[in-house]
Parts: sequence; structure tokens; C-alpha cells
Amino acid sequence: MARIGLLTSGGDCPGLNAVIRACVLRGIRIHGDQFVGFADGWRGLIEGSTLELDWKSVRGIGGLGGTILGTSRTNPLGDRGGVERIASNLRVLGVDALIVIGGEGTLAVANILSNSAIPIVGVPKTIDNDLFATDFSFGFHTAVEIATEAIDRLKTTGESHHRCMIAEVMGRHAGWIALYAGMATSAHAILIPEQKASIEDICEWVEGPVRRGRPPLVVVAEGFLAKGMSEPHSERGLDAFDRPRLGGIGEHLAPIIEERTGIETRSTTLGHIQRGGAPCATDRVLCTRLGLAAVDAVHDGAWGQMVATRGDEIVRVSLADSVGRLKTVPQSRYDEATYLFG
Amino acid sequence: MARIGLLTSGGDCPGLNAVIRACVLRGIRIHGDQFVGFADGWRGLIEGSTLELDWKSVRGIGGLGGTILGTSRTNPLGDRGGVERIASNLRVLGVDALIVIGGEGTLAVANILSNSAIPIVGVPKTIDNDLFATDFSFGFHTAVEIATEAIDRLKTTGESHHRCMIAEVMGRHAGWIALYAGMATSAHAILIPEQKASIEDICEWVEGPVRRGRPPLVVVAEGFLAKGMSEPHSERGLDAFDRPRLGGIGEHLAPIIEERTGIETRSTTLGHIQRGGAPCATDRVLCTRLGLAAVDAVHDGAWGQMVATRGDEIVRVSLADSVGRLKTVPQSRYDEATYLFG
Amino acid sequence: MARIGLLTSGGDCPGLNAVIRACVLRGIRIHGDQFVGFADGWRGLIEGSTLELDWKSVRGIGGLGGTILGTSRTNPLGDRGGVERIASNLRVLGVDALIVIGGEGTLAVANILSNSAIPIVGVPKTIDNDLFATDFSFGFHTAVEIATEAIDRLKTTGESHHRCMIAEVMGRHAGWIALYAGMATSAHAILIPEQKASIEDICEWVEGPVRRGRPPLVVVAEGFLAKGMSEPHSERGLDAFDRPRLGGIGEHLAPIIEERTGIETRSTTLGHIQRGGAPCATDRVLCTRLGLAAVDAVHDGAWGQMVATRGDEIVRVSLADSVGRLKTVPQSRYDEATYLFG
Amino acid sequence: MARIGLLTSGGDCPGLNAVIRACVLRGIRIHGDQFVGFADGWRGLIEGSTLELDWKSVRGIGGLGGTILGTSRTNPLGDRGGVERIASNLRVLGVDALIVIGGEGTLAVANILSNSAIPIVGVPKTIDNDLFATDFSFGFHTAVEIATEAIDRLKTTGESHHRCMIAEVMGRHAGWIALYAGMATSAHAILIPEQKASIEDICEWVEGPVRRGRPPLVVVAEGFLAKGMSEPHSERGLDAFDRPRLGGIGEHLAPIIEERTGIETRSTTLGHIQRGGAPCATDRVLCTRLGLAAVDAVHDGAWGQMVATRGDEIVRVSLADSVGRLKTVPQSRYDEATYLFG
Repeated sequence: MARIGLLTSGGDCPGLNAVIRACVLRGIRIHGDQFVGFADGWRGLIEGSTLELDWKSVRGIGGLGGTILGTSRTNPLGDRGGVERIASNLRVLGVDALIVIGGEGTLAVANILSNSAIPIVGVPKTIDNDLFATDFSFGFHTAVEIATEAIDRLKTTGESHHRCMIAEVMGRHAGWIALYAGMATSAHAILIPEQKASIEDICEWVEGPVRRGRPPLVVVAEGFLAKGMSEPHSERGLDAFDRPRLGGIGEHLAPIIEERTGIETRSTTLGHIQRGGAPCATDRVLCTRLGLAAVDAVHDGAWGQMVATRGDEIVRVSLADSVGRLKTVPQSRYDEATYLFG
Repeated sequence: MARIGLLTSGGDCPGLNAVIRACVLRGIRIHGDQFVGFADGWRGLIEGSTLELDWKSVRGIGGLGGTILGTSRTNPLGDRGGVERIASNLRVLGVDALIVIGGEGTLAVANILSNSAIPIVGVPKTIDNDLFATDFSFGFHTAVEIATEAIDRLKTTGESHHRCMIAEVMGRHAGWIALYAGMATSAHAILIPEQKASIEDICEWVEGPVRRGRPPLVVVAEGFLAKGMSEPHSERGLDAFDRPRLGGIGEHLAPIIEERTGIETRSTTLGHIQRGGAPCATDRVLCTRLGLAAVDAVHDGAWGQMVATRGDEIVRVSLADSVGRLKTVPQSRYDEATYLFG
Repeated sequence: MARIGLLTSGGDCPGLNAVIRACVLRGIRIHGDQFVGFADGWRGLIEGSTLELDWKSVRGIGGLGGTILGTSRTNPLGDRGGVERIASNLRVLGVDALIVIGGEGTLAVANILSNSAIPIVGVPKTIDNDLFATDFSFGFHTAVEIATEAIDRLKTTGESHHRCMIAEVMGRHAGWIALYAGMATSAHAILIPEQKASIEDICEWVEGPVRRGRPPLVVVAEGFLAKGMSEPHSERGLDAFDRPRLGGIGEHLAPIIEERTGIETRSTTLGHIQRGGAPCATDRVLCTRLGLAAVDAVHDGAWGQMVATRGDEIVRVSLADSVGRLKTVPQSRYDEATYLFG
Repeated sequence: MARIGLLTSGGDCPGLNAVIRACVLRGIRIHGDQFVGFADGWRGLIEGSTLELDWKSVRGIGGLGGTILGTSRTNPLGDRGGVERIASNLRVLGVDALIVIGGEGTLAVANILSNSAIPIVGVPKTIDNDLFATDFSFGFHTAVEIATEAIDRLKTTGESHHRCMIAEVMGRHAGWIALYAGMATSAHAILIPEQKASIEDICEWVEGPVRRGRPPLVVVAEGFLAKGMSEPHSERGLDAFDRPRLGGIGEHLAPIIEERTGIETRSTTLGHIQRGGAPCATDRVLCTRLGLAAVDAVHDGAWGQMVATRGDEIVRVSLADSVGRLKTVPQSRYDEATYLFG
């Protein structure tokens, strides 16, 4: 029996509620736990803004998008926070252990807190799938399904108008969504941050299908930069997570491709629809299993670890070994895709 | 028995193939007709680029997006075209009658051709639903379903982050998609070209739900202009149909709303995904019925008319009475929606 | 300002919650009304089981399937009920007017209550679309979308295996779902209660596409009876609404078609998935408008009337003129479809 | 450079076309191969019914359901077939190697052929996910998504009517679809062939949520048998693959549960919609990668092997080690789910 604190941090991601539900039901039924939810991620922990979570709180939320706890990008180690404050708040609230569900930044904080003897377990979350030490992170499969469905739609417009269609998908540092959605929609070019390509390369990929009477499809990750290109747009002073950007890489490439190839080209930025809404079934199952495993990790005192997927298993890996590293698309996976181009 | 020419013109729209299929099957089976498809709209007619259409050509296309004929925005009355040329090409090809499937511009041309004694029948097409003299135009229901599904996703992100979410949908001159998708997603503000609203009005609508602890949702048609706003962006020299625009009204409004209300605000432009891909069932049925009726109109010699929906009936209306007029959202329909705001 | 009772009765139908939400928001905001929900349809009214409905109760339910009020098939004029009891309960609860959302049976009861001076307004509901005096009833469009998506899936299996696929859809007395879903999926035969067809007719329709190398698709409404067939199955003693039936018409026809034509034939009964879950956007808009109109009808004292759709208008029609009549598929609509068969 | 024969065998499965496309494009572009497709599985190979497959044949099929090659359940080792005949036909057609895409039965045949020195590579296919030696088989994720979406719909009907809803999904020998779809929809009972449960157990699981005011959801695999139950229905003399069965286990359980618990209970059999139609994005990617790997295996002379998934890798495993064994749901995975019941 433990009193466990739960928080969701960072950008919205399909499946957060399924993780929360699984934690709470498993904890209550198997271990006799109590659960305290912190409102809006670290903010709630810093400010002591909490919700009691019983089984009724999580009723019917397994398939719902969003997070009943709210989320924010508050940095808990900033001015008003700090390790001391967090430890003190947990003590006051009688919280024995913390489960944090979040991305790179959140897991890095979790690692720091763990090093300061705060009993903490992580659940990795990113639709970009670029977290190290887990085969897949939840939300990713949903994002790929959404992007694929949207790109399927763009393709018919490309065919009707004999246009080159560009779809810009999420992926600031890693091109997993672009790789998967591009392969699923038979793209003629997949442009990802891991792989530099010149405008000449891109135009050649675009002209291949045109020569065979087919409308070209380009799927580009937001973080892609063409060889020789400097960052194509200002960041508007926003924090790095505030995606999508105004006038991104797709909008940047469209007129260049059109001018060089003579092929009418249009870009669509899929944006936030990739990261909101109901999780697909695969993500719901993954989230449920991660939630169960996180609670069990608490009861095993597996502090400083996060739950992760390896094959069809849920495993535990050390936060210390996971944070600060990025899982990018390996050359072999990119090559698989490129052999289908042109 | 007639030899009928078919063309699809203007922007891609879900259901074009279903219209083509219904025309061809009805014509062949009931009237013993032959069909000639013109490639890429008026371009094929001007240049004599044709496809023979038998029943095999239309096999299995009823549920497919796009148009097997291709489409373009070629103006047939421009330099290389003209009434004479069209009449002459039809004569040479032995085409007895023409069915044109297109929007405002195409139907206006059809009217001109009809006035020059070319036997022509129109099928109105626009996802914007702003064609006069038809209750609904095909593609509209599909666009509304797509927009609604996407906005549902944006809403969970708004809830998780306590943000104001703006969804920009299509609708340059009329706000039908915004009205329907906004009502379907319980928007707190629906901004359409027909209804001026000041930035103050908009901010008030946004603050209403915030006061009740709810994230605000704004659905804005691309053609909306706030009171006192001048056209917020250049047209890039593109033809008026080349939507969506780079940095549209949604992107324009987001920082203004955020600054005035203090509520974090993000905009997503749905763009081309609204106009491509497979038609929903409602549109497939509508398109099939319009196609059947268009062929029957040819055999009745109903020249200069277009097929249209009235209630659950398919009727014929004069092109002369329909073109040059826009069906905008009436005040009463807008009022229905606004009573749910705030 | 009024105190209005609300109930939903009969089978589940996508859009019930959207009607409830629109009633409550419109009533509270425009007219200063109060709302009392009755639990599980007439049962709640007979037994005095109620829920207070304020704006919080209807928050976020516009796109949700089901009914927050619950529903049942309780007959309010049966043993424990009766007009007197209803009138008395409404008096005790201080309810000034009643809005009932239901199908044929419910509207017939509403008419009887209205004749006994109970102030009542109806909202017609049936996924079958067979209610008289309204162009469309809500839930129908959603059912057609679901059925179409499912049948699209069955078609690929038919193609891969060169099989005849039969899809049995809802429609006990009228074939609207079969007509729409069949037309949307390019069925080779659409079998509906309104149109008798012999086994020979059906086999001929099935053999037509086979001769052209295409797998046949049959869409059959549950209420269809082939010429010369007697009711193919017992009713299991269930009330007439308890659909789908064990081993329905599709299962009945499959072996007969297979034996006579030599074409391998499989049937799938879509069943309850047609009537549950989230409403499509078209139904959400329709429901919202019906709910608004129902509350306005209450304030106009339009007792004994129901709100209905005519074209794109919401109108009022007399319950007395509507109940006891069925809107079946007219010959002309069926003929439209059959010309595409074979 | 090789001349490679391709066939798809057994029941329809989402993703077959994506495998075919990837094989053909990879082979043509990288290895300069030629491809011969056999019509309708082994039948085409026995009867010499073939299609030449060039890149145009596979254009645009990556996202389409079904198989452009057709499929059947023909046993190639039966009366008209045999190893000799197959070897001879391949010789006559100049086919150097065979890639067979199919389930247990097909892979067992492939193993026998391989033992007779026919150069063969397998691609495992089953929506049931019960093939040994591969983490996931393609089609499974699509089936789970379809089942989950359908069950989500059934749930609202359960809630509105306070009913117990039973969803019968595919899974004759293994309960993977039931496990995943049941976990994704928060089922209160998941009944699978691997786990016997008594009617008493089931009724207890059903009564748990009822006591907390929630409608129970039961997801049952078609192959489940309750303790003490004998096979509940005849097999109609059909071959074991001809699913779904007339009046399956769901229909069998519903009245028993209703009688014992007093809770109104309805069953829906999802049937063929689970195995047809377009593959989800996850399956499209998986199929593409399996296809690429199969062609590479041919060029490596990896005869008698099949391509398989392990984690996020594609690996090769020996057919001899894979066939004749079933991958069932392990106790630990079932336990994960059951802790959420009740």
C-alpha cells in the first residue's frame, strides 16, 4: 500500500489518460494504493494543486484523448521550484512515490530528482518516438495513423491536379513519423532531420514519378533541413516545443520545387491534429500495459527507472541511461524507404 | 442514344468519380449512350485530349477520391479556347452533348456555351456549399466530416493545455463549413465571411468558456475578416482558388487573441485535407443521384440547366438563374449557432 | 421561463446527447429555463426518477454517443403508468412542459398525452429514417456511414476470394439504410422490405457481375422477405425492437444463393454497431438544430407538435398527422438504384 | 536477377497488396528481377494461371485492401497438385524462386516444398497473430483497430440501455484479437481459447461493474469454450477457416448470462469486417518491410525460411521451426488484462 503521486507533463499526446487509468486501477485493486494527481504537470506539484484519484475518476477514460490531470511545460527546477520544494511538497502531501509521464525534459528532471533520493518512476511519452531505450513510445502509432489518413487524402488531390503534394509532419529531431507515414503512403521522397538531402536530390525524386505519369508525394519532417539551407524561419521566440511553426519547411520547399521542376507544388502542414484526440487501439494497449508496469515498479522500489517496450515485452530501464540520448532513424531503416523512391 | 462528353473542372472535390460512374452506367444501360471523357477539364476539350469511357473505365470508382478524368483551372474562353473552338471540337469528336461537373466558374462558362447553342448540362460542385439554387453541393458533407474529426482532436489538446484552439477551415466567400463543423464540435466562436465581428467580440467569446473553466474553441473560415481588419496577407499572385493561403486568418488571429486575453492560443489550418480523399456515404449517394439525373437531363434536352438538390429531391434549375449568385449563410442560421457561444 | 422535462426513449441512436445539450443550453441562455431529465425514458417519468440538468451536465456531450439520461422501452401507458400518473408526476415535479425524444412508439404516446392536455413537444428519432413528416431523422446518416465503411471492407474480401458478399443492415419496415449504403458501395442488389424480389431475381442480379468478372455485393435490410418466403426465423419472444435477430435474412439467403448460382457466398450482419457510438458531423448539426427548435416550440406553446426537417429547414408538424404512418422508400428511389444493378 | 513467383493464399487479410508491391518494386529496382503472380493462391500454381507483374501492376496498391492476385484455400498437395506438379510448373514457367504469403497451412506446404528442393521463402500472414516465431503478423493490428472501433460503438448502447454487451471477435485457436481489443475498450471480461472460464466466473465478472452502476462489456474470441461446455454449434461441414460461424459463442452466451444475472444481454459478432479492407498504417509499414525482406531473402538463397518481426527488426526464421506450432496468449499477458476486470 502506497500513496502515489501522478503527473503528466509536456505536450498533449494520445494515450495519457489510458496510462493514468491503468496506474490507478492496478494500484487500487492489487496493491491497495491511493493516488494523488498533480494538476498541469510539474506546476501542480510545485504549487500543491492536486486531485484525489479514485476508481471513479478514471472511469471511461481509457479511450479518451488528452489528460484529465492537465499538462504544462512548467520547469520544476526553475525559480519557484527546485528539488527541495518538490521533496517538501511530497512530504506534506504524504506522497510515497511519484510516477511521471512525460518526454525527454520530464524524464531528465525525474532523473535529477531520483538522484536526490526522491522515489520516482518514469513513463516515456513522445509522439516523435525519439526517446532512447524504448522501441516505441505511446502516441506515435496514433500520430502515424492520423498522418497517413490525411496524406491519403492529399494524394487524390495530387492525382486529380497532376500536382506534387508535400505533407509536413511532426518530428523536430527525428524523422520517425515521416518515415512511417511516408512508407505507408508510398511517398516518393521522405525528408528527415537525420538525412541531409540537397534541393537537387529532392527535385530528382520528384521528377521520377512525373516521368512515369504519377503525381509526386513528398513527406517531410518539420526538422528537416536541405543541404546548404540555413534555418528557414525564425522561431518567434517561442519555446522549442511550440510546434507547428508558422510557415515551416514544407511551405519553404513548395515554391522551390515548383520553380525548379516546373511541377505545380502544394504543401500542407498537418500540425496539431497529429498529437490530439483519441489514441488508436495499439496505443491504448501499450499505455495500459505501461501504466500497470509503472505501478508494479513502484512496489518493487525500482526508483530512477522508466518502463519501456522491447519487442512485445514491457521492461524497465534506467533513467540515467536513457536521458540525454536521442533515438534517431538509423541508416538501414532510411535505406529501406529510399529504395522505393523515384 | 447519344455521344456525351464529360469533364470535371476546378479544384478536387470528394465525389467527382461517383458522378462520372453514375453518368456512364446510366447512359450505357438505359439509353445506349457512348461517353467521351475530356482530360483535365476544359483543357482536354480545347486541346482535344480525350478518353473513351466504357463501363470498365468506371468500375470500382464510386468510393474513390479524385477524378479519373483529371482536372485543371484552365479557362476555356481564354486565348487558346473560345466558343467557336469548343463547338468545332465537339463536332469533330461527334459529341452530341456535354455534361460539365464544376463550380461557379465552370457553370458560368457552361451558361455562356449554352447561350451559343451548345447542348450542355451542369453538375454543381463545391466543397464550400456556396452555389446558388442547390440545397447542398457534393463534397461539402465530406469536408464537414473531415473538419469535425480534426477539430475533435484539437479540442483535447486545448483541454490538456488550457489553451484556446483556433481551427481554420475552407470557405472564402461563405462560411458553411465553419458553421457546420463549428456547430458539430461545440465551438465557442464561429467566424465567417458573412458576419463581421470585432476583435473585441472574438475575445469576449473566448473569455466566456475560460471563466467557466473550459478551453475555448474558435472555428474560422479562411475568408473571414475581423471588423477594421484589412486583408491580412498578400495573395502571392496566385489564382484565387489556390487555397489554403500561407499564414491565413487563423495564424493572424492567434497572437492577437493571446495578447488581449492572456490565454495561450494556437491555430491550425486544416488545408487541403478537407478537399481530397474518399467521399463520405452521404456524398456518394448524392453524387450518384446527380449523375443519373444529369444523363436523364441530356436525354430530355434540358440544355442550359443544372441538376440540383432540393430537400431529398433532385431537381433541374436554369444555369442562367444560378450563376453569378452566391448562397451565403443566412442570419438565422448564424444566430442558431451564436446562441450556443459564450 | 419554464421548467421543462426531457426524456429519451427507445433504442440507442447516435445524436441523443446532442439534442439534450442543445435543448438545455438554448433554454437556459435564451429563455431562463430549468431542465429536469427523466432517467431511462418513460420509466423515469412513471417512477419519478429524475436528474437536474444544468449547463454543466451537458458539457462536452455534443459529440458523444448514447444518452446521459439513459433509455428504455418502458411503455408509459402500461400497468404502472397511465396518463393520470404522468400528469400527476409532472405536477408534483413542477414540470411545465415535456420534450420527448423518441421513435414511432414514443411519439404515438406523446400524441395521446397531448390529447389529454399535457403540454408536450416531440423530437423524432430513428436510425431507420422511416418516420413520416420529416425528410431525415437523426442517427440515420451515422448508421449509413458506419454501414458503408463496413461494407467497403467486405468488398475487398469478396474480390480476393471471388465470393458473393451479403451485408445485412438494419431496417425492419423500411429499406432506407440498405438503399443508401447499397448505393454508396455500388451494390449489385439492394433488397428492402418495400420491394418483393424472388430468389430468381436475386440470383440473376448476383450472376450479372460474375459474368463480367466482378464479385457480387448484396445489401439486404433485415425486414426483407423474398417472394414466397415466410418469415424465416422465430422472434425468440423478444419485443419487436430487439434487433438484430439471431440468424437473420442474410444468413438465410447465403446458402440459397450459393446453391443456385454455384458462387461461394458469405453473409455478415452488421448489427448493433450501426446504432451506437459517436454521431457523424451531419447528425450532430441536425440534432443541435432539432434541440434548439424543440425548446423554441415549447416557448411558443406548440403542443402536440414535433420538430422535423424539410430541405435544410427545421419545421414543426403535428404529431397527430405524423404518427401511425411510415415513410417507406418510394418506387422512384428504388428504381434509381436498380438501374445500376446487374 | 531472378524470375520470382508470388502467391497469396488463405483468407483475405489487410496488407497483402502492400507485401506484393514491396516485393515487386524492390526486386525490379534493386535486383533487376522479373515477377510472375499466381492467380488465387496455390490454384494458380497448380493450373498454371499466371499474371506478369511489372511496376505498373503494383502502382497505387500499397494502401488497398485485398490482393490483386486473388486467393483461395486450394490445397496444392491434393489430388490435382503435388510436389512434382509444382516443381514441373515452376520449371516450365522459368520461375527461379517462390515467395508465398500465407498462414499456417500455406507455410507448412512451403516447408514441404522446401524439403523437396523447391527454392521458397515465406511471408507469414494471419489476422489472428497466432503464428509462431514472429512477434506480430500483418493484418492483426488492422483487425484490432476495426474491432476496437466497433466495440466503442457497442459500449454506448450498453450504457444507454444498462445492458451487458458481448462482442465476438475472431480468434479460433488464440485470443490475441480479443486480448488487444478487450484491453483497448476496457472490457470487464475477456474470454479466449487459452483460458477456460466457467459460466460462474463470467457472470461474476459481469456483475462486478453492474454493482458499480456500469454496463458490463464482454469481449469473446470465437474459439472460446466455457468450462464444461461442449462445442456449442455444428461446423456446417465447412472447412475450418470459414469463419464466422452461424450463431457463435457470443450468441450462445448472451441468453445464459441474461438468465443467470438478470441483466439484459446482447451479443454482436463482428465477423468478416475484421479481415477486409484497407490496412492501418502500422500494417502497411510492416507489410512493406516484410516484402522488401522476402525479396532480399530470395537473393540470399535463404530457402526454407520466412521473414518475421522481432521487436522493430525484420528477421529470418526457419519454416521448419515455425510451422506446426501455435503462438498463444501467455498466462502473464492474460493476467495483465484480468487485473482490470470486475
